[in-house]
Amino acid sequence: MTDELLHKDHPAFADWQCRDGELLIGGQPVGLLAARLGQTPFYAYDREKISRRVADLRAALPPSVRLHYAIKANPMPAVVQHFAGLVDGFDVASANELDLALDTPMKADHISFAGPAKSDAELVRAIAGGITIELESEQEMIRTVKAGGLLGITPRVAVRVNPDFKLRGSGMHMGGGASQFGIDAEAVPDLLRAMGDLGLSFQGFHIFGGSQNLNAEAIADAEDQIADLAIRLADHAPSAVRHLNIGGGFGIPYFPKDRPLDLGHVGARLQGTADKLQKALPDAALIVELGRYLVGEAGVYVCKVIDRKVSRGQVFLVTDGGLHHQLSATGNFGQGIRRNYPVAIASRFDTPAAETASIVGCLCTPIDLLADKIAVPMADVGDLVAIFQSGAYGRSASPSAFLSHPEAREALI
Amino acid sequence: MTDELLHKDHPAFADWQCRDGELLIGGQPVGLLAARLGQTPFYAYDREKISRRVADLRAALPPSVRLHYAIKANPMPAVVQHFAGLVDGFDVASANELDLALDTPMKADHISFAGPAKSDAELVRAIAGGITIELESEQEMIRTVKAGGLLGITPRVAVRVNPDFKLRGSGMHMGGGASQFGIDAEAVPDLLRAMGDLGLSFQGFHIFGGSQNLNAEAIADAEDQIADLAIRLADHAPSAVRHLNIGGGFGIPYFPKDRPLDLGHVGARLQGTADKLQKALPDAALIVELGRYLVGEAGVYVCKVIDRKVSRGQVFLVTDGGLHHQLSATGNFGQGIRRNYPVAIASRFDTPAAETASIVGCLCTPIDLLADKIAVPMADVGDLVAIFQSGAYGRSASPSAFLSHPEAREALI
Repeated sequence: MTDELLHKDHPAFADWQCRDGELLIGGQPVGLLAARLGQTPFYAYDREKISRRVADLRAALPPSVRLHYAIKANPMPAVVQHFAGLVDGFDVASANELDLALDTPMKADHISFAGPAKSDAELVRAIAGGITIELESEQEMIRTVKAGGLLGITPRVAVRVNPDFKLRGSGMHMGGGASQFGIDAEAVPDLLRAMGDLGLSFQGFHIFGGSQNLNAEAIADAEDQIADLAIRLADHAPSAVRHLNIGGGFGIPYFPKDRPLDLGHVGARLQGTADKLQKALPDAALIVELGRYLVGEAGVYVCKVIDRKVSRGQVFLVTDGGLHHQLSATGNFGQGIRRNYPVAIASRFDTPAAETASIVGCLCTPIDLLADKIAVPMADVGDLVAIFQSGAYGRSASPSAFLSHPEAREALI
Repeated sequence: MTDELLHKDHPAFADWQCRDGELLIGGQPVGLLAARLGQTPFYAYDREKISRRVADLRAALPPSVRLHYAIKANPMPAVVQHFAGLVDGFDVASANELDLALDTPMKADHISFAGPAKSDAELVRAIAGGITIELESEQEMIRTVKAGGLLGITPRVAVRVNPDFKLRGSGMHMGGGASQFGIDAEAVPDLLRAMGDLGLSFQGFHIFGGSQNLNAEAIADAEDQIADLAIRLADHAPSAVRHLNIGGGFGIPYFPKDRPLDLGHVGARLQGTADKLQKALPDAALIVELGRYLVGEAGVYVCKVIDRKVSRGQVFLVTDGGLHHQLSATGNFGQGIRRNYPVAIASRFDTPAAETASIVGCLCTPIDLLADKIAVPMADVGDLVAIFQSGAYGRSASPSAFLSHPEAREALI
């Protein structure tokens, strides 16, 4: 049974401990945590795992790299506050995320705002907050000038570039073709020339190639191409390039055959890219912006078994959780093919598998399937189920109002 | 271009009017509605279209049929209140939906509660409210008895049956195999015999075959099989069968090649089924429970164009809406293949198509695609976009917190 692999060997399990059979999250037994929170389901994020991931990145990437956190991956305020003490900057994708970022000690000039449909009100809020606006179109540049004029403040802007290549092996492609994101690379020189007279403070470039990529060589290739593109475009810039945000796209292993990203290789190759950039654009800080990679593996979604039933020979563990809290884990958020996330019985974490069961949610729809026929120890009503790799794009990326069940709680431990 | 068909001929457009070029919803111009609500994006539901749909069903289905509304399709309180005056009962899927139902004039004994993981607290609330619990497992039956004992009330129960056949051509299959829903048909006789001594008030059966089905013949076949199964199971019931809820599964046309369900044919064939049931189980009311079919075509999701850009020859209308409000329309909610919903420029509803454009949302992800290369009139910043067929599984079935943008408002007009 291939799921034996899932239960025992998934890389996601390797880094979690248990005590008296119970999964520990941030050193706390999962059952005690449920009691403290007063309910299941909940998300729990491990503070130490987040810190360690940042330390690992610092060790692997060139020392000159600035590390940014993309708040959209996990906007829990406590998580954002924790990151403020760890990383060098934030990226926000909406005015509400902007508030989350400015509520931390992070300096405004280390916060950037990307997004293809910023409203006039959002532009005003961003300029008033002193953060950098990533321009996604020429029209947005004009609206930014107007908003700055209203406030009497010179807006800080960077140019988001739609590159003319794409990141190979990426979970989500960005760039390489027509896109709603950024300005086509070939149109950027004219835009930069126009910018000179508009009263904008040019900061640099944002150039992303994709996301959820587990191929170190492909990531390194794209980073190098991005640097070359930025160096070419810099010739047309109205002032020195102060930063180049090359995104990230570092993936995490969700499925049994996924292998963790070779971070050492990414770091080694990025050193060459950084050196080249340093020579060509000595004022430009090199920024790596990550979301999922920073927080995805630090989070667990926990729900409780409410019923155990056998239907036509198949065991179902019916839980109080479901796709309304953890949509991606059910394979229904844009995935073409449904595959199991790493899932375990958290209250019997060290008990060997004894049967095959499907773990389902509480919604009245057959797509509410958290784990399809996996190997688990014997579990029954009251047992806790953990879905790993749930720290990013989990709670906030799920349809929490669907069927009007209670929302999942959250804790950072 | 196949999308010409979409713009002109999709059945979803046929029933909507415009005035001075603007789409009317409930008789109101869409721009005026946006002004009244104070924001885009919003959902607007047309009260008259809902009423007319119920009237059409009353005319087509046998007069003895009782019509129930499944609140999960659209739990907006005003919509639920409107249905209370139109239909004969409600189905709820959670304790919060139970409250929505009991806040209307609908009588408690015409409300049923289905769902595979009802908690003890939910069972207590349901019994205290006097509604009928659809038993999904033997364990749930035992817990229901206990909850009734705590309250000193005899619980009203029905048995949800996992049938031994499935509805052909259904968007979502239920039944025919192993399932988290209901009790396997072959295990029901034993359960019914056990029920006699437990102090439960037996009401009847819930037997569903599937959902989102556009094939009248397949629906009618399944309805007839469901009646036969109920008649067989009734032999084992502890008391007379008071109702048989056969679900619905009536689909609506989302995509260009979809054709509306032949309701006349469903109704004609259901008459035969109703006659058979009346003969065999004279005390049993025949219930058709619908959600999507009642409200799906009455709703429109409206967002505003914030940017118009051309990237490598492709036109993008970038809106303030997106998959955080209308996930299904982007093809990312469990659909294997992405197809366009019927989408139009609501502020230029009678203007002929003049170009091909993609309509995207405001999120930083390429999957936030509301319409892929459709034929539209020339549109620009400030124009309003309407996504039709959005009345069911729209707002409540979308990840509204994703990227922390404002929620969509709702209006029933």
